[in-house]
Amino acid sequence: MLTSTLSAITPLDAAFLASIQARLDNKTKPLGSLGRLEEFACRICAIHGSDTPDLAKKVIFTFAADHGITEEGVSLYPREVTAQMVLNFLRGGAGVNVLARHAGAEVRVVDVGVDHDFGDCPGLIHAKVARGTRNFARGPAMTRDELAAALVVGIRLADQCKAEGIGLVGTGEMGIGNTSPSSAIIAAIGGFTPEQVTHRGTGIGDEALRVKITAIGNGLELNRPDPADPLEVLQKVGGLEIAAIAGLVLGCAANRIPVIADGFISTAGALIASELTPHVKEYLFAAHESVEVGHRFMLERIGIRPILNLDLRLGEGTGGALAMPLLEAGVKILAEMATFEQAGVTGH
Amino acid sequence: MLTSTLSAITPLDAAFLASIQARLDNKTKPLGSLGRLEEFACRICAIHGSDTPDLAKKVIFTFAADHGITEEGVSLYPREVTAQMVLNFLRGGAGVNVLARHAGAEVRVVDVGVDHDFGDCPGLIHAKVARGTRNFARGPAMTRDELAAALVVGIRLADQCKAEGIGLVGTGEMGIGNTSPSSAIIAAIGGFTPEQVTHRGTGIGDEALRVKITAIGNGLELNRPDPADPLEVLQKVGGLEIAAIAGLVLGCAANRIPVIADGFISTAGALIASELTPHVKEYLFAAHESVEVGHRFMLERIGIRPILNLDLRLGEGTGGALAMPLLEAGVKILAEMATFEQAGVTGH
Repeated sequence: MLTSTLSAITPLDAAFLASIQARLDNKTKPLGSLGRLEEFACRICAIHGSDTPDLAKKVIFTFAADHGITEEGVSLYPREVTAQMVLNFLRGGAGVNVLARHAGAEVRVVDVGVDHDFGDCPGLIHAKVARGTRNFARGPAMTRDELAAALVVGIRLADQCKAEGIGLVGTGEMGIGNTSPSSAIIAAIGGFTPEQVTHRGTGIGDEALRVKITAIGNGLELNRPDPADPLEVLQKVGGLEIAAIAGLVLGCAANRIPVIADGFISTAGALIASELTPHVKEYLFAAHESVEVGHRFMLERIGIRPILNLDLRLGEGTGGALAMPLLEAGVKILAEMATFEQAGVTGH
Repeated sequence: MLTSTLSAITPLDAAFLASIQARLDNKTKPLGSLGRLEEFACRICAIHGSDTPDLAKKVIFTFAADHGITEEGVSLYPREVTAQMVLNFLRGGAGVNVLARHAGAEVRVVDVGVDHDFGDCPGLIHAKVARGTRNFARGPAMTRDELAAALVVGIRLADQCKAEGIGLVGTGEMGIGNTSPSSAIIAAIGGFTPEQVTHRGTGIGDEALRVKITAIGNGLELNRPDPADPLEVLQKVGGLEIAAIAGLVLGCAANRIPVIADGFISTAGALIASELTPHVKEYLFAAHESVEVGHRFMLERIGIRPILNLDLRLGEGTGGALAMPLLEAGVKILAEMATFEQAGVTGH
């Protein structure tokens, strides 16, 4: 399934991109003066293969999972908060719910690895691969089979979006402890030390930060993932929600759906996808630059520029929800602005 | 009128600001993790004097005026484009129209100094002070009376917004040649050379940029405005739309309406307002950081941080339209997010 998904991800059509830019250049504005909105319009049209892309249906996927690394004391919050927040998402009371409503997007909450039995729990997408990862400071976070299953969760959700006519997808996550695997992933792939890419997550103090850096360092030393094998990195020091996000990003690119990576943890997933095939980045938007120090290195490695910089560090998909209206704005510029000729304005 | 407006601008209530932050701190998220959205919520609540500020009615004012400095060949476009674009705004085909509709805001187009007789022209706010400024490279741009009249245009529009229950205002402008007076204003007030603060406007080449820098330098040398007298700076090297924007910003602050400055030209107006009374900045939001090199110096001088950085350089109010949903998002976080107690989530 991964192989067929990867082979379906092809470069965007350069001639089509240029034709959209040419139309933007004839709108009543100085050349290029709408800056990145013009980039958004071009890329979204080329991804959809249409000069009238339909972004009416928008979905943010919030993948939840737990992390064995929390045994090391890397987070400010206890592990049970992951499950508690899943219930908060389902009741519509979390940050991502508020911001997705504001953007006209639907939030879909996916249990891909929470250490809690949710029972029936209406509204929750049940896709639990395991009750959390193992502690990667003491061994691999997951098995190859668990990794494959979590990737497939994301790929299948993207396929379903295509069938539903979803025009724009955002990634999000919830998992106490999940900045630690994200730091480990960028350290392993980019060749950084844990000190360079590890930050305060939900807000830990100096002592806990030292503990976190040590745990990540121990995990990398023990597991020694091959930097050239992104799936091995993900399996050994990653997380189940990060794997599902990698699958979702790959699935969106394969299905030609523009996908917005949220912050640090989501971008860890997008980074794995991008390492597997570089064309992924043509389908990918970076919602914002997180306060987490390692995020910048991920964005540079992928080669994408963040849309917002609002000092966010919440995750869940909140940054993607805030970025969605800006992507839509680019498309509306193309659709609705008058040309010089239509407006009777003297051109350049 | 200016004196009574200035005296009505008072600092925001620090205790009220703190009470809003305390409520945000109890929402289901790590402390401070929604970054600048939290700042937006606090300031907008304090400006409105309400913890449920009503932002349903939003207006962007696009002030249009012409500039004598265009005689020097400082712009890529001919002067008649100002009037042509006014008609484009009224028909709804310009960038600001598209982006304001997207944000749920109304565009109000104000002729404060266009060198064109619009006749009846339904939808246009007729407030013409003069048919453009004089060429400030050869003398003062306007008289003291013209300056006073243009300031009053902006103040009166803000008073009217208060009467209508407008919850959020954006500034915008259209005027061929108006980056030149904006550069001259920041050069005069901040003590910069024209080279440091002059850029390509709508997209002029190297030769025209040298001509523009020379014209601005000549204007500053000839007029010698007192840097400590912002009204003198505005009168001698400013523009009618810039004066109206200064008045609008002052009027919004006096009426306790949050106001968003758009890009380089709008911020020149906001800078004059801020130099007149420093509390203005508590009511002011900077929509974005413009491509124009002088914009950063204005923002630093006022002491406000831009919300977006999307490489915009169109003006009209487009950046403000894009920023409006982000300000609203902050207010919705306060109104709609669950607290730790409501959600049954273990706090910190």
